[in-house]
This record gives sequence, structure tokens and C-alpha cells, in this order.
Amino acid sequence: MNYDVFLSRAGERMQQSAIRQMGTVAAQRPDVISFAPGYPAPDVFAWADYREIAASVLSGSDGTALQYGPTRGFPPLLESIVELLAGRGIAATPSDLLVTTGSQQGLDLTARVLLDPGDIVLVELPSYTGAITAFRNAQATLVGVPQAEDGVDLDRLDATLVRLRSEGQRVKLLYVVPNFQNPTGLLIGLEKRRQLLDWTTRRNLLIVEDDPYGALYFEGTTSADTRPIKADDDEGRVIYLSSFSKTLAPAFRVAWMTAPAALAARFETAKQALDLCTGNYDQRMVYEACRRGVLARQVPQLRVHYEQKCRVMEDALHRTLGREIAWTSPRGGFFLWTALPRSVNTAHLLTRALAHGVIFVAGGAFFVDGSGQYTLRLAFSLPTPDRIVEGVNRLAAAVKEELAGAPAEPAVTATQGR
Amino acid sequence: MNYDVFLSRAGERMQQSAIRQMGTVAAQRPDVISFAPGYPAPDVFAWADYREIAASVLSGSDGTALQYGPTRGFPPLLESIVELLAGRGIAATPSDLLVTTGSQQGLDLTARVLLDPGDIVLVELPSYTGAITAFRNAQATLVGVPQAEDGVDLDRLDATLVRLRSEGQRVKLLYVVPNFQNPTGLLIGLEKRRQLLDWTTRRNLLIVEDDPYGALYFEGTTSADTRPIKADDDEGRVIYLSSFSKTLAPAFRVAWMTAPAALAARFETAKQALDLCTGNYDQRMVYEACRRGVLARQVPQLRVHYEQKCRVMEDALHRTLGREIAWTSPRGGFFLWTALPRSVNTAHLLTRALAHGVIFVAGGAFFVDGSGQYTLRLAFSLPTPDRIVEGVNRLAAAVKEELAGAPAEPAVTATQGR
Repeated sequence: MNYDVFLSRAGERMQQSAIRQMGTVAAQRPDVISFAPGYPAPDVFAWADYREIAASVLSGSDGTALQYGPTRGFPPLLESIVELLAGRGIAATPSDLLVTTGSQQGLDLTARVLLDPGDIVLVELPSYTGAITAFRNAQATLVGVPQAEDGVDLDRLDATLVRLRSEGQRVKLLYVVPNFQNPTGLLIGLEKRRQLLDWTTRRNLLIVEDDPYGALYFEGTTSADTRPIKADDDEGRVIYLSSFSKTLAPAFRVAWMTAPAALAARFETAKQALDLCTGNYDQRMVYEACRRGVLARQVPQLRVHYEQKCRVMEDALHRTLGREIAWTSPRGGFFLWTALPRSVNTAHLLTRALAHGVIFVAGGAFFVDGSGQYTLRLAFSLPTPDRIVEGVNRLAAAVKEELAGAPAEPAVTATQGR
Repeated sequence: MNYDVFLSRAGERMQQSAIRQMGTVAAQRPDVISFAPGYPAPDVFAWADYREIAASVLSGSDGTALQYGPTRGFPPLLESIVELLAGRGIAATPSDLLVTTGSQQGLDLTARVLLDPGDIVLVELPSYTGAITAFRNAQATLVGVPQAEDGVDLDRLDATLVRLRSEGQRVKLLYVVPNFQNPTGLLIGLEKRRQLLDWTTRRNLLIVEDDPYGALYFEGTTSADTRPIKADDDEGRVIYLSSFSKTLAPAFRVAWMTAPAALAARFETAKQALDLCTGNYDQRMVYEACRRGVLARQVPQLRVHYEQKCRVMEDALHRTLGREIAWTSPRGGFFLWTALPRSVNTAHLLTRALAHGVIFVAGGAFFVDGSGQYTLRLAFSLPTPDRIVEGVNRLAAAVKEELAGAPAEPAVTATQGR
């Protein structure tokens, strides 16, 4: 039977996530070293604390722990998030908040409540694929703006907006990841953050600020450097997304949105039709991890952990590929963003790399304008230091073969690797 | 700031769920007896088993237990679902399956992959509000068809389809809840199931078969009576949804879709942009509950538990409102569907009932054609037998006042009750 006639226009066009595809490859081939998805390291999860928390949440003394819960989220967790946000300089109340099933749901809610087909979202070049997909599934049009050293190029941003509006286009949102951007690792400067907020006021846009990595800064960087744009949002222009996935554990699927109360109420209504509510059990786990200080203990350890891995990867790259590839040293987060000579197509390189037993995400997936084919994203967060070194050695072998123009082994492709 | 200019057409029109609203009332006023949301009873959850399972899942020996997981679902759980489906007469493989974050997400995925604005979904009168909302949020048009005693009236269904197609409308789906329907509790007859399947083949539609309650039948009914339409779907016309929310616990948010493989692949791609994956921790909990026989032990106990509550409610209604209201005795599930004299508006009655300390869902929310204002849904699943009796007494007082035309207390409304 042919189902094409039953598909919606959005359904026809949906495309597999390049990152999720690589996640599948990694899960099915433990011999492959994965620098692909930005997975946190499970060996630093607070397993013992979670065992204790689970035993108490499941005591049976509170039947609501395994029941449906309010769509907004478990009220005590909302209070914990208010506190956590205060530490980031953001004054919020529960009426500004919505717990989401991962930040991906926050992106999806944003798309559905705000975007009609043809509406325009401005994004950085490159930008996070999960956001690109969520906005595209609402049939929005994404327009990319290059980044300068301190974040998106404001002159080009404004010129793009003016051009689009003069063409009669509806430009609604600017999507940015100011802290240790996915995929570039870039930290947007404080002055640039202020300028972006002023600009959206002047031009009447909303900002979607996605901040999963802000707490995970490295030595020499502080919470002053990662102050969210939302912290200075007096007018209500910013929809701020953050998550416990990178600090506690992704499996809980607990994240949140902070938005002007009028929009938060819309997101709540929309979420009712998406999944009724985020898992109450997971929310209790996360709430207890906040209340018992697990999160506060974890975060400083994670900063050290991920910085060490970043340095190991950088050292290995310097040793093996110092002349072939270029990157900017990140000040936090999970990613090294690297550029190869422009003659290299990293989607093609990926085939060769897989044959060598290492994977990454080819950079093209992050560019809404089809550029960046010579870039690649390396996540250092998951593998152990030894595996990072070994993975970089494998990558170096693949890169050197590719640059030497050796024929790739034709039988091995990323798709077959699934 | 006015955000109206930023809203999508779907975002403008989204409406609060009547059931979720009543859930909020119930959560905030423990003095109120709730017959509103179809919540399972937490006192029969397998708390001790879950404590053991959590301790083993969180041992730390398998780091992937708290990691991101495949979008399709945790592979061993997919195998458990295959087995569970075989017990219902459905032959499925993992390529036909997708784990969803509650069945609500399955409805949402169906809407997004299959429905364009203006597409038509045929639904029963009355039908489940969660499905209505999911389809409406895709800007589909819902057309209702009355139910006969053995399920939706096939002659009127066909006449409706013929009329709509003659008007040039795109009719894509029929949505049905054959087992102990939400809200009516109706069990569609086996012959009617076969006729519906034949009819969709003849008329080239797909069926969305929603089956959260099928396992929860009462004495005298068997799994032969609840055989899903999907079990006889040789051609690939049926998208079948089911869930662990009513049998294990809703907080896990673990449900699944079974669809022709070509559609399941589309749903998987769409889900990547919704929430990446359903919580891995929750999926391990549910998988272990299947593997260790917890589910198999629970279900027969739940049948007895909910049947007893149903009988308690029916007895209490007979005693107090036997002349004022009418209902059909359900053969399973969570709901009693009742009709009052047509002069009564149950949305109005709800205000009065809340003042008496009892709530329900006014039936109008289940009718896509605006009818059914004199009906109401009573969920007997959550309250204890004593509370059921007390709640029915309160309801009876409210109904009798309403029928006597007494003025309602103006200060108390459902909205203020939140």
C-alpha cells in the first residue's frame, strides 16, 4: 500500500536528524568511537544519589508520584527552577515557567504556537539541528546569518531583516545559543547580548535563547560571562530554554521554558495536546536532586570533567592534525568545532572515518544555507580520555587518507553502518 | 506587550482541555471528590516491585540506563511490546512500532504526519477530547458520527463520507476507541469491527484505533471481545495506539504506536523533532515490569479493582439518582457515561456540583458538533469506594437542586476553583 496520499505536507518533508542517525550507528557498533551526539558521560552521573531518591519517591507514601501531573510541571520543581534561574540573574515566577519533555519539546512548542508556514526564523550559521528541524516541521523558512568572533554578526543580521521585510516576509524569531553554542562552542560576548536584545526591541522580534550548556564553563570563565540574555529582558522579548539533561541525566527528559506569562500560558495549552504532562516520576527525581543538593555538587565536578576531556582532545588534535585542521578552543560545553581545508567534504570523510572506527557529525547539517561542507563537529563529552586519544588517531588517519585522495572503501557507508 | 501578532493560526485557536482543567481543580482542592480525569488508582500500583526495579536499573552497571536512547524506543521493550501485542492477536515486528511519550504523543504524531489544515477526521459522537485537540491543533476539521449500540453507526458514517467527498473534502482518518470508549465506556461489537475495517478499505481511509483500556475488562467479558481491529488489518489500514499508563502507571509516560512500517518510520522521524526520545529510565522501569511479570500479575487484579468501583458507583447512582439519570452499564474501563434530562446543561451543573464538593467532566467537551450538553462523564477509577458513595451523594444533591431550578451560588465557578 502506498501511504503518500495520506501524508501531510509537513509529513512528506520531514528529514532524519543527522545527529540521531549517528547515535544509532554508535549504539549498534560499540567498536566505533563516537564524537557524534553530545551525550553526557554516564560515569559521572550521581547514581548512588538517584538510588536513594528513587527508593524514597517510590515508598508509596505519596501516590501522586506515579500519577498524571499538572501540565505546567510538578509545583515544587517549578519552585526549584525559579531559584536556579535567580542564580543566573533571571527573575521568574512559576507563571513564567513550563516544564518540558526535554528542551526539544520547548523548541517544538515554540514552533507550533508561534510559526505559520512561510514565517521566517533567523538562525546563526551554523546552528543547532534540533531547532532547525522543529522550526522546519512547522514549515517555517530558516534564514542564516554568519557569526563574528563574539557571536552573530549584527550588521548582517539587521541587513537580512530589512531585506526580508522589504520583500513582505514575516520575520518572527531569532534563535540563538549564546553559551558554548551547539555546534561551534562559541560564547557570545556580553556586549553583543545587550545589542541583540536592543535590536529585537527596535525591530520587534522575539528571541529564542537556548541554554543547555551555560553551567558547564571551564576555568577562567564564570557565571558573569554566561549571563543569559533573558536576565536583562525587561520587556518580555525572550523565550529562554534550559535543561537538566547535561547536568543530571538526559534519560529524565526534564527541561523547562521561561517565557512571558502570556506566552507560557499558550505553551501550556499546546503541551496538553503533545503529551499531557512531562513524566511525574522523572520530575520527582530531578526535584529531589535539586532539593538534596545533588545538582549543586555535580556541576563543579562536571566543569572539571568536561574541561579535562576537551584538553585531551585538543592535545591529540594538535599532535595529529595540527596542520590539517583549525578550531577555536571552547570555554565550556561539549563541542569542538573544526574546519578542514575547503576541498574536503566532511560527509564524504565520515564514510571513511567510520571505516576507521570513529564518527562525528558532518558540519553541513548545521548550516541552513547548504554551506559548511568542510566543517565537522566533535563532541568530547562522552568517551573516556583514552578513547578520545584513540578516536583522534583514527580520525587523523581518515583525514590524511582523504587529503591524499585515496579512494574510500566503497562498501562502507554511514547508512549501512546503521 | 501584546503577543498576538507573534502567534500562529494554530496557536491562536488552541483551547484548554476540559479534563486537564478539572484535574487542576482536583489537585488544588483535596476536599473535592473527583470523578473528572480518568486517573488510575495509585493504591494498586506495584510500588514494591518498582522500588526493586529502580534499585537495579540505577545500579550504575549500565550507563545507558540514564542516557539518551533510540527514538524508536528501548529495543528490549520493543520486543516486550511485540509479545504483548501477540497476546491481543496483533502480529507486529519492531519495525512497526514506536514508543511514544504517552498515547497523547501518538495522537499528536498522527496529526502532524498525516493532517494538513482542512483535512477531515471522522470521529464518534462523543469522542475522546485528547484526540479531538490533537487533530484540531493540526487545523484539521472534525466531523462526528453518532454511535449505535454496537459502535459507530455505519450507514451514517458512509453517508457522511460520501457527502464530504462530493463536496471535494479530503477525508483521511477515522478515529475510534473500540474498547470501553472514552467517554461512553462502549465496547464496539466484533462484527462492527470487521465492517469498519472493510469499509475503510472500500473507501480508502486509515483507522486510528486508540486502545488504552482493552485489558481492563470486567467479569463476563474476555480478550475475545476486545480483539483490536488492528488484529485483522492485513492491508495496513490501522494505526493502533496503546499504553502502560492505565495498567502500570501514568507517570512513566510510556505508550506505543503500531503502524504499517512505512508510516512507523515517518512517525519516528517526526518524533525526533518532538522530544528526541521517550525517557530511557521510564522505559527501563516499564521493560523490567514486563520482564519480571509485574504487568501480568497486575492486570487481573486491576480488572477486579475497577469492576468493584464501577459497581459501587452504579449502586450509589441507582439509590440516589435512579429516576433522574440514565446510563449503560460498562463492561470494562474507567467511565460511566450518563445522560440527564435534556433540559439540564451539565456545564452549568458542574458549577453547582463543585459547590457541593464533587466534580466530573461535562459531556459537551466530547462532542465535536456542539451537542451533548445534557451528558456527563463520571470516572470511577480513582476514588475509594467510600469516596465514590459520598461523591455520588453530593452529585445527587446538586442534580436535584438543578432540576428544582434552584439558583446556583454565583460566587463559585470551575475557573475560580483553580
